[in-house]
Amino acid sequence: MYQHGGDIYSNNVKLDFSANINPFGMPYAVKKAAECAIANCIHYPDTYCRELTKGISIKEEIKEEHILCGNGAADLIFRFVLAKSPKKALLLAPSFSEYEAALHTINCHIHYHILQEEYGYCLTEQFLNEITQQTDVVILCNPNNPTGILIEKELLYKIVCQCHKTNTFLFLDECFLDFMANEKEISLKQQIHYNKNIMILKAFTKMYGMAGLRLGYCICSDTTLIQKMRFVSQSWAVSIPAQAAGVAALNETEFVKKTIELIQQEKQYLLSELKNIGIYCYTPSANYIFFKAERGYYEMLLKKGILIRSCHNYKGLCHGYYRIAIKTHEQNKILIEALKEVKKCQK
Amino acid sequence: MYQHGGDIYSNNVKLDFSANINPFGMPYAVKKAAECAIANCIHYPDTYCRELTKGISIKEEIKEEHILCGNGAADLIFRFVLAKSPKKALLLAPSFSEYEAALHTINCHIHYHILQEEYGYCLTEQFLNEITQQTDVVILCNPNNPTGILIEKELLYKIVCQCHKTNTFLFLDECFLDFMANEKEISLKQQIHYNKNIMILKAFTKMYGMAGLRLGYCICSDTTLIQKMRFVSQSWAVSIPAQAAGVAALNETEFVKKTIELIQQEKQYLLSELKNIGIYCYTPSANYIFFKAERGYYEMLLKKGILIRSCHNYKGLCHGYYRIAIKTHEQNKILIEALKEVKKCQK
Repeated sequence: MYQHGGDIYSNNVKLDFSANINPFGMPYAVKKAAECAIANCIHYPDTYCRELTKGISIKEEIKEEHILCGNGAADLIFRFVLAKSPKKALLLAPSFSEYEAALHTINCHIHYHILQEEYGYCLTEQFLNEITQQTDVVILCNPNNPTGILIEKELLYKIVCQCHKTNTFLFLDECFLDFMANEKEISLKQQIHYNKNIMILKAFTKMYGMAGLRLGYCICSDTTLIQKMRFVSQSWAVSIPAQAAGVAALNETEFVKKTIELIQQEKQYLLSELKNIGIYCYTPSANYIFFKAERGYYEMLLKKGILIRSCHNYKGLCHGYYRIAIKTHEQNKILIEALKEVKKCQK
Repeated sequence: MYQHGGDIYSNNVKLDFSANINPFGMPYAVKKAAECAIANCIHYPDTYCRELTKGISIKEEIKEEHILCGNGAADLIFRFVLAKSPKKALLLAPSFSEYEAALHTINCHIHYHILQEEYGYCLTEQFLNEITQQTDVVILCNPNNPTGILIEKELLYKIVCQCHKTNTFLFLDECFLDFMANEKEISLKQQIHYNKNIMILKAFTKMYGMAGLRLGYCICSDTTLIQKMRFVSQSWAVSIPAQAAGVAALNETEFVKKTIELIQQEKQYLLSELKNIGIYCYTPSANYIFFKAERGYYEMLLKKGILIRSCHNYKGLCHGYYRIAIKTHEQNKILIEALKEVKKCQK
């Protein structure tokens, strides 16, 4: 069964708060680039995504040979797992379920570090003890999904050290970092230059509203691993429109700035309104908010045409946990009104 | 290194005869559907490709649960291999190299049946002896790529019988059958209804000029295998524009008819002209022609801006074997003229 948010196909949805996509949608120039690229689709895509990779390389200040593009970030999770073929992996629970889905395909033994409610689902130093010589791979998501919680910077560096000591590979999903103003400070991207044991995962889909077009990339200075990741998949995974849209997206610095401002502003609005309603939220660092409430919110909101993410199927969570995307002010207001009604009905 | 045709990115190409794409390109309605779908790309794609699968089901007269869509046919080759996980596979040489690329990812032992030049690269009854109890999977391409040669119908049925006897799974790539007027007679699709041990691979990319958009599907009545193939990949492999284009393509019956007529006509033209030049061709059944000539044709044509497929890197072949797509009359004439000049230079 389908495990994720964004399923507007099984439900009658007027407003989708379940997928964490930029509320501004796709920038105009990106949309145009994708549309124009349809005419080129009589050709096979460039297997090496040359123009796109060059653009990412300039933007990220990372060598081209350390970049691999994929059919969405999720494609690269599967390719990483196939290429690395770890015997034992360490994951967080709750976290994005495609990591374990990918690891299951190679029958990898997964050890889950269960994030504790009493610590607000924050990662603590206890995690360090679980990275041992036997751990082949650690997969982390920063900020985490669905909690939106950031790993403390100092702890993150300690994790990198511990991984180095135990010869453990760190796969770090930074797909939602783009929505933070201080992304550059938090990201481990610059470590790539001198540490072959880290891979950073990035997506175009969220920031540039391209979820249906599929485009992601990863960064790693282990070129043998990057090469292997090419070979565990077909030669033409990234479509021509996705490549063209990606190239156009790299110019959208103003759009990114505007988005971060909106998210910041609307995050405050939603947090304050949710507090007024009496809903407890975990401190969000990304473009979504994780909260705990009574059971039944998902169903009651869906009756109103509003889809939110019920987090009951995340390992480590149960019914009554929800995730909502931060959208435009108008849309957020509709959600708040609907939540007020839901609250009233429950009394 | 890139192994296939269609690389217009590494070369300065005016005319691409190296990729076997419909010379009419993408039908107008398909192009429009893909362009319109860009606007929906702020959403994730439907993981189940519901509308598309329903359409394919009606067209192919195959149950929906026996159909799986992929990010191009090549995506499904990798997914099949991962899901089936064969220990020993039997392949033809020469044949499409993505089969072995996929099998290499799981370290499958590959036994190659080398097609013989003395038999015109036709498959013979000797092949039957090579399907044994130890063979987990046979992968065939009908018509074969790059030779364009069809498997004799009687032999194909014997192969199915032998696979049944030895409990061997038959993966049959029929991606190029669409270009034949008698496709329905030749295809093994109808066997799917009562034989769980066959999977048929089909593509939208070739017939509908959608190579850069990526869309393929496979048909199999082993629903457990289909289910497994879902799980060895990400949840959103098929983009929204590809799904929309596919739905539109299913209505293009006139376009398909017109294409088959053009291919038939131009095939005769090319064969006759190539014969006049003194180039020996193997009998083509698809939308491409395989021929043997002197070394250096690839390089000399490329100097003129014409890209053909040098088949030297196919297992079982060497320099001097080439494959050309059948294109429009005007384009084919340019190729013939260029070939005449190349021939002259060589004297």
